[in-house]
Amino acid sequence: MARESVRGGRGGEREERHGEIRFIDGGTVTTPRGFSSGATYAGIKTYAEDKLDLGLLLSQRPSSVAGVFTTSAIRSPSVRLTEERVSQGKARALVVNSGVANACVGEQGYTDAQDTTAEAANRLGLRPEEVLIGSTGIIGVELPMALIRAGIRRIELSEDGGHHLARAILTTDSHPKEGAVSFQLRGKTITIGGIAKGAGMIHPNMATMLSYLTTDGEVEAAFLQRALKGAVDASFNMLSVDGDTSTNDTVLIFSSGAAEAGPIEEGSPYGDLFQDALGQLCVHLAKEIARDGEGATKLIEVTVEGAKTSSAARLAARTVVSSSLVKCAVHGADPNWGRIIAALGRSGAEVEEGKIALYVNDVCIMEDGRPIPFHKDGVVALMRGAEVSFRIRLNLGQGRATAWGCDLSEEYVTFNSAYTT
Amino acid sequence: MARESVRGGRGGEREERHGEIRFIDGGTVTTPRGFSSGATYAGIKTYAEDKLDLGLLLSQRPSSVAGVFTTSAIRSPSVRLTEERVSQGKARALVVNSGVANACVGEQGYTDAQDTTAEAANRLGLRPEEVLIGSTGIIGVELPMALIRAGIRRIELSEDGGHHLARAILTTDSHPKEGAVSFQLRGKTITIGGIAKGAGMIHPNMATMLSYLTTDGEVEAAFLQRALKGAVDASFNMLSVDGDTSTNDTVLIFSSGAAEAGPIEEGSPYGDLFQDALGQLCVHLAKEIARDGEGATKLIEVTVEGAKTSSAARLAARTVVSSSLVKCAVHGADPNWGRIIAALGRSGAEVEEGKIALYVNDVCIMEDGRPIPFHKDGVVALMRGAEVSFRIRLNLGQGRATAWGCDLSEEYVTFNSAYTT
Repeated sequence: MARESVRGGRGGEREERHGEIRFIDGGTVTTPRGFSSGATYAGIKTYAEDKLDLGLLLSQRPSSVAGVFTTSAIRSPSVRLTEERVSQGKARALVVNSGVANACVGEQGYTDAQDTTAEAANRLGLRPEEVLIGSTGIIGVELPMALIRAGIRRIELSEDGGHHLARAILTTDSHPKEGAVSFQLRGKTITIGGIAKGAGMIHPNMATMLSYLTTDGEVEAAFLQRALKGAVDASFNMLSVDGDTSTNDTVLIFSSGAAEAGPIEEGSPYGDLFQDALGQLCVHLAKEIARDGEGATKLIEVTVEGAKTSSAARLAARTVVSSSLVKCAVHGADPNWGRIIAALGRSGAEVEEGKIALYVNDVCIMEDGRPIPFHKDGVVALMRGAEVSFRIRLNLGQGRATAWGCDLSEEYVTFNSAYTT
Repeated sequence: MARESVRGGRGGEREERHGEIRFIDGGTVTTPRGFSSGATYAGIKTYAEDKLDLGLLLSQRPSSVAGVFTTSAIRSPSVRLTEERVSQGKARALVVNSGVANACVGEQGYTDAQDTTAEAANRLGLRPEEVLIGSTGIIGVELPMALIRAGIRRIELSEDGGHHLARAILTTDSHPKEGAVSFQLRGKTITIGGIAKGAGMIHPNMATMLSYLTTDGEVEAAFLQRALKGAVDASFNMLSVDGDTSTNDTVLIFSSGAAEAGPIEEGSPYGDLFQDALGQLCVHLAKEIARDGEGATKLIEVTVEGAKTSSAARLAARTVVSSSLVKCAVHGADPNWGRIIAALGRSGAEVEEGKIALYVNDVCIMEDGRPIPFHKDGVVALMRGAEVSFRIRLNLGQGRATAWGCDLSEEYVTFNSAYTT
């Protein structure tokens, strides 16, 4: 529905500049042309209010596919099977369940993942090799295959079914995360849509970070993989809710070419535009995840500029946004530069104390490595808002990176202590 | 006082086995022969209940000295000056203040550190180069030199003044951490004593980890440095309260030889015994720090066995003990193996899921990478105690390491949020 109205609206805006990237209100993974989706309650997820727990995503055409997976040494067989299939560069569909992560279950997990994709392939008229799988939820418990088989047969797909899929992948999230962006290419509209679910892990429901993306642009698999990796590195990989990494973290993108706008090639202006749009969508979804961290009341954005290298900037930004002490200070609206300096110092990034400048929501509170007088009440008031940003200038080089996270609240501890296995 | 009574007691125990290491009740940094200490309230520390904030430690003889310092790129000039002097291998005294960390104050900090040691040297009849300095407390504020000068002149030293020094170095700690061990060498008693203060950082009083150790054994500087490094790596460096590292972290040891038992040489059985005793004392002090972490209600001990290498074991143990989710689970007495597995998986240590075994306070709850049935109520009851231990067997090699930390409580967040800069 969102798709129709937005496209209709855009049809009348012929003055739109080439290269402009637009966010689409109400956009989701089925906003790009040629994708359908649906979900059902199979009975796997027993603890959440939103009972959808099994979904399908289908590309009506053969699609290129790319994926980025958890770096954990302990991985779900669902991740293993999907990674194998993504390496072929082609896929048509995805089956995803929440409630059970299919992790720490031995080799049965791989068999169950295969069987689940075979059932989905049967339902969709595809070969099993064309179907990818994602799982999130309890670990140490096998997938309930009878429920999954029955559930898959019940799912109805539709062209705005992405909203249902966005709900079906949730575990401890308080709401679905969705988005879509578009840009013009050779007179056609290229759309990229996506959904995500959040970080913050509660065993046995281990809140894996999942994101599924689609585009009706035509992007061949090798470029799609590099574009996705670049976008993930600058978004989901710069995200920290509680510093944990799950056995199931996965980001996938399908490229169907259904916009019929011709190939989008690496190194061309259109390739750059696609990469930029994909990056913006991933940052949007990553920020939504941070904002919805367990117990979170604020989004924290940390930008490090002037680092010696961009990897040093990434390291410094991630270290600051992950610091429990910084997170507590933000929770208390305390412009606590000492904790930021301490995190920078231990980050491993090169820093020179005498060159550091620090801004809280654009107010400078430190220069040349020393605190400067600032209007304390004003900065505290700024920090009481829903978004707190720290900008750190290291004045050593050109490296720049931004990381996102959330504050650490008493509720986080209560939530994660009170749960009983 | 402790020294006299214990030594008296031991005098009657001639049957004591060679090589036995004994903990001394009430032992502290002045328990070894030849050390005196004292402290005063100089007026630097305005926020703590225990007002001692400036202390001196003196070795009555020339001593070997060794030190291990913060790895942070942002360091206090007090650390810089001390490290320079320790590199000479000889020192006689230490001046230490709490309340102000002498960090993030530009070059004035180095001048103030020099002046403080000169004042202490003057008071003690030494050369400034023989005096080391430690500082902990607020950062971004210069040392109040007039108060420090007046304070140093007021300090009275005594042979059981270590208890005062232990109080004078505290910031947010709830109580002093002290200890001493002894062993027999060539018919004499060798004693090693120490004090420490804790981790958990509250800016602007940044709770640096400090530990000061003394021994009346005769150990030359190069071996002393290697022995200290080894002991710190297996104790303070395996300690995590909130994952932070301060600008001022320092461990120092003075070796006076006042026991007159002859040299303790590296590679000899006595050298090994000294290293073992020093290690045990450092582990004792590190555990005391963990137990007293901000908001902590429990000590957590994580032992990883059977890792491919000992560095992999260290990495795995530290990652598990530092995990916010594991810390919350311990707070709630939840035998939450999924969070431990997740931490292991992301630690960077080599693990094979199918080989992992996990014990909670010696009860096996996971074998071959899969949870096994266990008496849940019994394990929860064990975890309600003041100490929770996790033993993880990776079954890949011989690497072994233990790490210590504490649970994460609502009080930690309240404490660290409520504080206003």
